[in-house]
Amino acid sequence: MRILVVNVNTTESMTRSIAGAARAVAAPGTEIIGLTPAIGADSVEGNFESHLAAAAVMSAVTTYPEPFDAVIQAGFGEHGKEGLMELLDVPVVDMTEAAAHLAMLLGRSFSAVTTLDRTVPLIEERLAAFGLSAHCASVRSTGLGVLELEDADAARRAITAQARLAVDEDRAEVIVLGCGGMAGLDAELGRELGVPVVEGVAAAVKLAEGLLTLGLSTSKSRTYAAPRPKEVRGWPLPVI
Amino acid sequence: MRILVVNVNTTESMTRSIAGAARAVAAPGTEIIGLTPAIGADSVEGNFESHLAAAAVMSAVTTYPEPFDAVIQAGFGEHGKEGLMELLDVPVVDMTEAAAHLAMLLGRSFSAVTTLDRTVPLIEERLAAFGLSAHCASVRSTGLGVLELEDADAARRAITAQARLAVDEDRAEVIVLGCGGMAGLDAELGRELGVPVVEGVAAAVKLAEGLLTLGLSTSKSRTYAAPRPKEVRGWPLPVI
Amino acid sequence: MRILVVNVNTTESMTRSIAGAARAVAAPGTEIIGLTPAIGADSVEGNFESHLAAAAVMSAVTTYPEPFDAVIQAGFGEHGKEGLMELLDVPVVDMTEAAAHLAMLLGRSFSAVTTLDRTVPLIEERLAAFGLSAHCASVRSTGLGVLELEDADAARRAITAQARLAVDEDRAEVIVLGCGGMAGLDAELGRELGVPVVEGVAAAVKLAEGLLTLGLSTSKSRTYAAPRPKEVRGWPLPVI
Amino acid sequence: MRILVVNVNTTESMTRSIAGAARAVAAPGTEIIGLTPAIGADSVEGNFESHLAAAAVMSAVTTYPEPFDAVIQAGFGEHGKEGLMELLDVPVVDMTEAAAHLAMLLGRSFSAVTTLDRTVPLIEERLAAFGLSAHCASVRSTGLGVLELEDADAARRAITAQARLAVDEDRAEVIVLGCGGMAGLDAELGRELGVPVVEGVAAAVKLAEGLLTLGLSTSKSRTYAAPRPKEVRGWPLPVI
Amino acid sequence: MRILVVNVNTTESMTRSIAGAARAVAAPGTEIIGLTPAIGADSVEGNFESHLAAAAVMSAVTTYPEPFDAVIQAGFGEHGKEGLMELLDVPVVDMTEAAAHLAMLLGRSFSAVTTLDRTVPLIEERLAAFGLSAHCASVRSTGLGVLELEDADAARRAITAQARLAVDEDRAEVIVLGCGGMAGLDAELGRELGVPVVEGVAAAVKLAEGLLTLGLSTSKSRTYAAPRPKEVRGWPLPVI
Amino acid sequence: MRILVVNVNTTESMTRSIAGAARAVAAPGTEIIGLTPAIGADSVEGNFESHLAAAAVMSAVTTYPEPFDAVIQAGFGEHGKEGLMELLDVPVVDMTEAAAHLAMLLGRSFSAVTTLDRTVPLIEERLAAFGLSAHCASVRSTGLGVLELEDADAARRAITAQARLAVDEDRAEVIVLGCGGMAGLDAELGRELGVPVVEGVAAAVKLAEGLLTLGLSTSKSRTYAAPRPKEVRGWPLPVI
Repeated sequence: MRILVVNVNTTESMTRSIAGAARAVAAPGTEIIGLTPAIGADSVEGNFESHLAAAAVMSAVTTYPEPFDAVIQAGFGEHGKEGLMELLDVPVVDMTEAAAHLAMLLGRSFSAVTTLDRTVPLIEERLAAFGLSAHCASVRSTGLGVLELEDADAARRAITAQARLAVDEDRAEVIVLGCGGMAGLDAELGRELGVPVVEGVAAAVKLAEGLLTLGLSTSKSRTYAAPRPKEVRGWPLPVI
Repeated sequence: MRILVVNVNTTESMTRSIAGAARAVAAPGTEIIGLTPAIGADSVEGNFESHLAAAAVMSAVTTYPEPFDAVIQAGFGEHGKEGLMELLDVPVVDMTEAAAHLAMLLGRSFSAVTTLDRTVPLIEERLAAFGLSAHCASVRSTGLGVLELEDADAARRAITAQARLAVDEDRAEVIVLGCGGMAGLDAELGRELGVPVVEGVAAAVKLAEGLLTLGLSTSKSRTYAAPRPKEVRGWPLPVI
Repeated sequence: MRILVVNVNTTESMTRSIAGAARAVAAPGTEIIGLTPAIGADSVEGNFESHLAAAAVMSAVTTYPEPFDAVIQAGFGEHGKEGLMELLDVPVVDMTEAAAHLAMLLGRSFSAVTTLDRTVPLIEERLAAFGLSAHCASVRSTGLGVLELEDADAARRAITAQARLAVDEDRAEVIVLGCGGMAGLDAELGRELGVPVVEGVAAAVKLAEGLLTLGLSTSKSRTYAAPRPKEVRGWPLPVI
Repeated sequence: MRILVVNVNTTESMTRSIAGAARAVAAPGTEIIGLTPAIGADSVEGNFESHLAAAAVMSAVTTYPEPFDAVIQAGFGEHGKEGLMELLDVPVVDMTEAAAHLAMLLGRSFSAVTTLDRTVPLIEERLAAFGLSAHCASVRSTGLGVLELEDADAARRAITAQARLAVDEDRAEVIVLGCGGMAGLDAELGRELGVPVVEGVAAAVKLAEGLLTLGLSTSKSRTYAAPRPKEVRGWPLPVI
Repeated sequence: MRILVVNVNTTESMTRSIAGAARAVAAPGTEIIGLTPAIGADSVEGNFESHLAAAAVMSAVTTYPEPFDAVIQAGFGEHGKEGLMELLDVPVVDMTEAAAHLAMLLGRSFSAVTTLDRTVPLIEERLAAFGLSAHCASVRSTGLGVLELEDADAARRAITAQARLAVDEDRAEVIVLGCGGMAGLDAELGRELGVPVVEGVAAAVKLAEGLLTLGLSTSKSRTYAAPRPKEVRGWPLPVI
Repeated sequence: MRILVVNVNTTESMTRSIAGAARAVAAPGTEIIGLTPAIGADSVEGNFESHLAAAAVMSAVTTYPEPFDAVIQAGFGEHGKEGLMELLDVPVVDMTEAAAHLAMLLGRSFSAVTTLDRTVPLIEERLAAFGLSAHCASVRSTGLGVLELEDADAARRAITAQARLAVDEDRAEVIVLGCGGMAGLDAELGRELGVPVVEGVAAAVKLAEGLLTLGLSTSKSRTYAAPRPKEVRGWPLPVI
């Protein structure tokens, strides 16, 4: 099976690292293809960038020239999954929901640790829209921007500090890494904290593989039925 | 004061009718400017079109060449208001929330009557995201597409029928018209049903004027702070 | 249009200041009339006084000898609006709900800053009854009694301190002034805090004007239908 | 122990019947005293009458000349219990909450059957304010006015019909009689329906006795602390 | 009337102390019988022990050789009440729900103070399942194990400290003692804290007596209907 | 990897069929072992049987003589998963939660179709305890007992009828099969209904495999820490 892992920002190095994280956990027969949208911000840290990413991701995925069996949207707390579900017949898994689903299997409550404080409300709203808020103890921010995560040491220290507060003060029993740029930190962080740490891209790969094995895909009965045929100007978004 | 009323679809005749509804209730000193996005579907009836509209509306508003004092987003249940709030310093009012706010002042519960059944979940999610679900009795659909509303008689009949069911079965005490294309039907429908009928564009005009008179605008303290300066490819969206 | 602004306590100087705050934001054609109930406490700071105020306000408004087009109930978190809605055909706007409605348009969450700690649960319950709790970050008290607000400097300091805590600790993005006696402090406090500050009387004036312009009034279909004709002893309350 | 059972309307025959229902279940040492407010409507069927009843009940109870050990407020879904809790040092039990508390011990969900449809939202709001909504399956109305309950046959038929619908359609496992005027119907209705039927006055007597035996009374720590000393005009309400 | 008070653990001295607490508040005609399950842990402090207690309690109660009129399950936050309700025709009252019901009559919010931190989520879940979470301010743990409560001085100090935090920080107005082993501490703790303290076994006795006086028992209409006749291996649990 | 699939009832033929359903979707390297508890009812259709199953399942799993890598609890809406999580270091997946997690990835809302009406509240409570209620449209019963499902034709007809009602009336977009005895019906039912149908045992296998691949297991930090060492009488349950 072939899974398209689509980044939400335009930073190709981040797409490569996300695709690498996906490949590291993929089943033997699973091919992972990283996809970077042509349009959008080099990091998504707010509503403007997230709404733009939704359109850019839909455009990139629907114009991708090869066949694929599932899509993973690799942004944490970003918009747009619902549009992809309408446009495609194959399963679409968002890394936010994927991480939350697995975290809920592992403990009584989970916390997400993310980047800037301003993205906390977006993540909370996305979890609520996914119906996954009930066991979320907190969403905590490190104060680091998405691209600052590339300084791995500083990132690890900041993430560890917030994760520890989530465990000690918010009573989280599981930690979710709340940014595509944190892929790869889960195992080490888990050892350090003594609680399970779930990384969303990896979680999404296993969920997508599971759905495909079971022959399951998006319901087309109502909310995610294919768009009605109509005139859509400027679509797909022109790449200049 | 000058209020930009931005349509979410690309049908100019609908923009004109929406702007007309806004003008009909505007205070003497208020200038209403209708704006049609250059990109997007000719009607917005689902997630794909709504996410695309979010990007198209942000692009249209931020490239509008004249100054303005407030923006009204004239789509019912559509995405994107949060991005506009980040991008602008002036108040942004969505017609969905505007209608719900006024409806809540008038009765114990309200129902929205909208177009296609498939848009019901979007509207419910937007009301939830706005924090305005608690007194919403139901969202009901007429089964008509947005552009079918142009047949005014059929539209009125279908809307009246669903509104009556909302009052009789769902215990709605106030009806909200759930589509920009329904502007102008409120007064007549209210007389026929015997309950208040709130139309969102008109509601949004009065709320925007109220905020401006009170000198209030979007909080820039956290969620809706201006986007951080960064490289954004393909932005604003190119108009071809 | 003529708007009756009814105080909930019997302190006439507070009625004057509330009416002044209303007049300061009223549209050119709006006449503001302040009304003080003949019965009740000189400040309302708890359930006994609030329930008594509900009866006293209903009695004062229904015996007011001149015609009017709307009523504003100028107490924060007090009972009785629902009774007025039954008794009257014109719109009734409570300053608590008015402030919350406008605050929700301006940011992701709001906090109210009020007087005594004991009134916090009342305010929380009224917001819940209005269906306006979902985006309320907190209700905070200054510890000052209603009448202690007349020492403007101390009041401003205490309110500013709690508002800052609401922003910093509770993540409020908008502040609501939670007492009729705080009218007039909003603009200055907003400048100091850097977030929008909404004062309920002013908010209520703009909402009442908006409803009147749109020709909207209370639904009479169920909850707020006129009381059935029946024997009511001691009503209106005798003024001795 | 001596329990004051205060009616919310001014119909003395109803007070007598309520007090009789209380006496029928009281423990040997319990004295029941019926109290009718001097002010208010002869039946309470809406917000105006309920808010007036709140003030009238507080006035009647605080001017009652003899000592008592507990108060039962015998109106279903009416306002005012919170004010009594502030004014008194003895326990106050509302018949609405009493019925719901016992019903929750007896089955997975309960429905209340009440009089006019217009009172349904009041009852729902009071249950919510008491924190007792979670297991409430529905509040159903018979369409009968409070005083029409005196035709016992018609009342029984109408109540039975709605109770059966509550069991069959709303999945109620316990029925709560939602009006002081329904006292005495519980046993027969229970036999007929085959599910437990809880009558609120009787429930309140057992809860009040239980609290007194355990030496428990209202917490005076915050919400229900005694009112601050202040000038209250026209209080207690003059009886003319 | 005869009430079986069944402990959830196998420590007979605790059964005696629980039965003593029940007897201390029972009405003159009430006989209290303490029952210790033959199977299970000597203290219940987690899910494994609680699930085992559910089976052991059902087995002990259904094989108890004498008739009884009601059952009290004397564990705080433990599983199994629903099974007993199915198996029996007499009322079943759990001490957790009993304490919460009475606490809700006495103040705006309550906190439970329990033993080990790990039992907090169980208690929260049981309160939620009983529909009694809405007014629960917090569940706080002392860090003491169930059997460490036998050192009365240390227990009292730890419970008092947490109860004080519940009042000061969580705004609890009533305290609930969250362990069968705390029976007897309520009166003294109430005096020390200045807020009502509710002990669940005593509360359950008064509720059970109240239900019996009113002739009320578990609804057999759906959830708690008697089990269908079927083959059940190893039941009742063999006592070796 | 080796996954223990533990039935909740004592019917061995059902264990075989459940294990078969698990094997049908297991990855190449996964070994499935079916386990039948020695104690309990031949079908679990209520609280008594479910609580007994919880103890019996814990006893069966902890005395299973061979090593295993994960456990699947194959009862729909039954108690006990939390106890297993405490007792084991390997992941535990309940078929109820597994089905709900996958269903939530596939559509806006799901309905479960189960056996007897009396089990509906149990399932609703378990979904709530798992934090998975928000997108559950309904739980519907066929009226068939668990063992009546062995008449495959009647079962299929009854399940299809309720599933269709769930789609048409409750707006479910995905159907969950709510009983271990329904394993194997999902593919055919999905074709007939035109919406995805999720079977819980299959879902649980893919989730357990996913967790194992990612090296994730139950958090031992608080709720699911290993039981404290203590005296537990009659444990494990004696098999006679």
